[in-house]
Amino acid sequence: MYGLLTGVRIVEGASFIAGPYCSLLLSQLGAEIIRFDAIGGGPDYRRWPLGPGGNSLYWEGLNKGKKSIALNLGMPEGRELAIAIITAEGTDSGIFVTNYPESGLLSHDSLCTLRRDLVTARVLGHADGSSAVDYTVNCAVGLPYMTGPQGSERVPINHVLPAWDLLAGSTAAISVLAAIEYRRRTGLGQHIRIPLSDVAAATLGTLGQIAEVAISGTDRPKYGNNLFGAFGRDFGCADGKRVMIVAITSKQWRALIAALDLQSSISALEAEAGISLDADEGARFLHRDRINAIVEQAIARYTLATLSQRLTTSGVCFGVYRTVHEALTEDPSFVESNPIFADVQHPSGLKYPTPGFPASFSGEVRRDSSAAPILGRDTEEVLTTILRIPSAALASLHDRGVVRLADRLLSPS
Amino acid sequence: MYGLLTGVRIVEGASFIAGPYCSLLLSQLGAEIIRFDAIGGGPDYRRWPLGPGGNSLYWEGLNKGKKSIALNLGMPEGRELAIAIITAEGTDSGIFVTNYPESGLLSHDSLCTLRRDLVTARVLGHADGSSAVDYTVNCAVGLPYMTGPQGSERVPINHVLPAWDLLAGSTAAISVLAAIEYRRRTGLGQHIRIPLSDVAAATLGTLGQIAEVAISGTDRPKYGNNLFGAFGRDFGCADGKRVMIVAITSKQWRALIAALDLQSSISALEAEAGISLDADEGARFLHRDRINAIVEQAIARYTLATLSQRLTTSGVCFGVYRTVHEALTEDPSFVESNPIFADVQHPSGLKYPTPGFPASFSGEVRRDSSAAPILGRDTEEVLTTILRIPSAALASLHDRGVVRLADRLLSPS
Repeated sequence: MYGLLTGVRIVEGASFIAGPYCSLLLSQLGAEIIRFDAIGGGPDYRRWPLGPGGNSLYWEGLNKGKKSIALNLGMPEGRELAIAIITAEGTDSGIFVTNYPESGLLSHDSLCTLRRDLVTARVLGHADGSSAVDYTVNCAVGLPYMTGPQGSERVPINHVLPAWDLLAGSTAAISVLAAIEYRRRTGLGQHIRIPLSDVAAATLGTLGQIAEVAISGTDRPKYGNNLFGAFGRDFGCADGKRVMIVAITSKQWRALIAALDLQSSISALEAEAGISLDADEGARFLHRDRINAIVEQAIARYTLATLSQRLTTSGVCFGVYRTVHEALTEDPSFVESNPIFADVQHPSGLKYPTPGFPASFSGEVRRDSSAAPILGRDTEEVLTTILRIPSAALASLHDRGVVRLADRLLSPS
Repeated sequence: MYGLLTGVRIVEGASFIAGPYCSLLLSQLGAEIIRFDAIGGGPDYRRWPLGPGGNSLYWEGLNKGKKSIALNLGMPEGRELAIAIITAEGTDSGIFVTNYPESGLLSHDSLCTLRRDLVTARVLGHADGSSAVDYTVNCAVGLPYMTGPQGSERVPINHVLPAWDLLAGSTAAISVLAAIEYRRRTGLGQHIRIPLSDVAAATLGTLGQIAEVAISGTDRPKYGNNLFGAFGRDFGCADGKRVMIVAITSKQWRALIAALDLQSSISALEAEAGISLDADEGARFLHRDRINAIVEQAIARYTLATLSQRLTTSGVCFGVYRTVHEALTEDPSFVESNPIFADVQHPSGLKYPTPGFPASFSGEVRRDSSAAPILGRDTEEVLTTILRIPSAALASLHDRGVVRLADRLLSPS
């Protein structure tokens, strides 16, 4: 996609989201990613959503643009090959992204006996090594008890976005880049451990939510769809469409008042309550029931088309609630005309809009996203170029089930 | 916190989450961050949650460990100082993280006339420059219509975690590190644009969710607290506590069967439906109502304490639903005994658990998180060391209201 990290080579032995997402991001910036999998695929190879033929669209999404090698990790020779690829020489290689167990053959310490300056980025559930996934971390940090309608405090509502997986993957990518920088300066490698549960705890702390509860001694209740601490909520239009309107800054607040002609009713509320809603964002939250009623009535008068025009003209910060299908068909900026997407054909045989890196670089031309690999597609290339294994030996490795060479499966001898 | 990025200097002119979070992460890895704000604070200086004295715990959380300078950006001299600091010479300086408008004095192009190799990382709402925040992006990409109880499809439920802000900030940090690497190799700077809406669209694409809808033509409905595509849901214990149980892999599934002695009822279901729940994670999802009923009944027999022991012994992947307060008081691994947290006293005068970077590095000793700065604390140091402004001139800048020197405000002359 971009060439900023050209020359960096990363070996990925990981499944699901966090590890694969880490190397996907680095791949999109120009790093070469060699992903190894068990022959037949790892535990994420059939993860939903699936295409009509049973291929995992999730796997294709997370592994696009990577090289794929297929090894039998149950055989000592297969494991030796994985180890050799991870620890192969090269200036900006020797980087391993994984969610494999910490001990054993693929432990950082044992790999370091072959390459001393190895950088291992290991995503894991809990810092103590115990098992956790995004959904079991999320429930433990309080968010499901803050999500959903007011008054339903003890009814947890799970999130549907695996935010902790994604943030752990991003944090891993940042850590890998910092470790490469450090290694260049000092010659030293790193074993980086990124526990999902620590990513979640640190994030809540950074947002002030741990301080809030530690100091007050009480939990933040559910506030429904109200934005916390300023003005923001969903509202229905005359045609049944819904919008999210936000006024955190004074400028956003004044734009809203102007767009909906609310000056007199808001002034009356301010006079009655002795507050300035313009100057004090917190007052907008404390008096949200009164404000919501005023805004609700104003918005219900307009269809979405008319409302959008008014809000846009005044510079109000708002968004339209859409399903994914509605976003795909009604909002060209989402995917259809969005330059980060390209129609790409994947191993499933399906061609669909495939995103690249979600940032643009003025000094680099964006290239379209690559397809996901067919499992084992690059086994032969990687073994011959990086490990310099001769062709005859390759055939034997394939025939003995140590590796899978994609082309031999397509046209078996 | 860590010293991996020692020598890197970043200037931050940004507010709210995405920009400040980007530089916070880089700061925690050793970069020096100089944040400039309007005298009296920017638009995020009073963002909730607040401490008892009215200080923003959110601001303290996002800006800890940074240097703070306070400038009057409404005065030409104030703007000139900001520009001079952003474009000051230095090998690993000349990096600007911002959410300021794209045009005008702080535009990348105008800054580049003073420092050609500048790296600007600009977070913005939409790629076209129009306004958006996390909450208005989230509603537009379909997630609120997928969140919450089954059957309530047209009732949107907002998320409470500003995931897009956080992911945009992480993406910006990755982009900045890649741009530093690239600049070292080529001498070239970059204007990096990271739109929140593109981060959201790309993420959904990477998870396969755009392909899913583009191919099927239909939206994914709400599945309540059920994990999509495999087994997972919340369940109540005999003592009213709730757990989230997940079985995505066969290993996790077998562990669950063993822990709850479900073999006979699950085998009966498999025989009746002609499926293998062990081999086929999708079948666990399709038959979730039957499975949920079996698991629900089994779990309702145990208190949380007994259940936890059984699940842990068998290696089941699970988490306990807790509020933040419950997590703080019942789970020592969350904060109390978690080495990523330290009790730090902040400008609010409050001392509370403050997180550092959520990854550990084997080659580096973790140092405790720093406090947030008092607004303008470092104005004098930055102006004298980086811009080499003499003391007499500084006093005049302060007296004319161009800058704020914190010590002069504490003990006015």
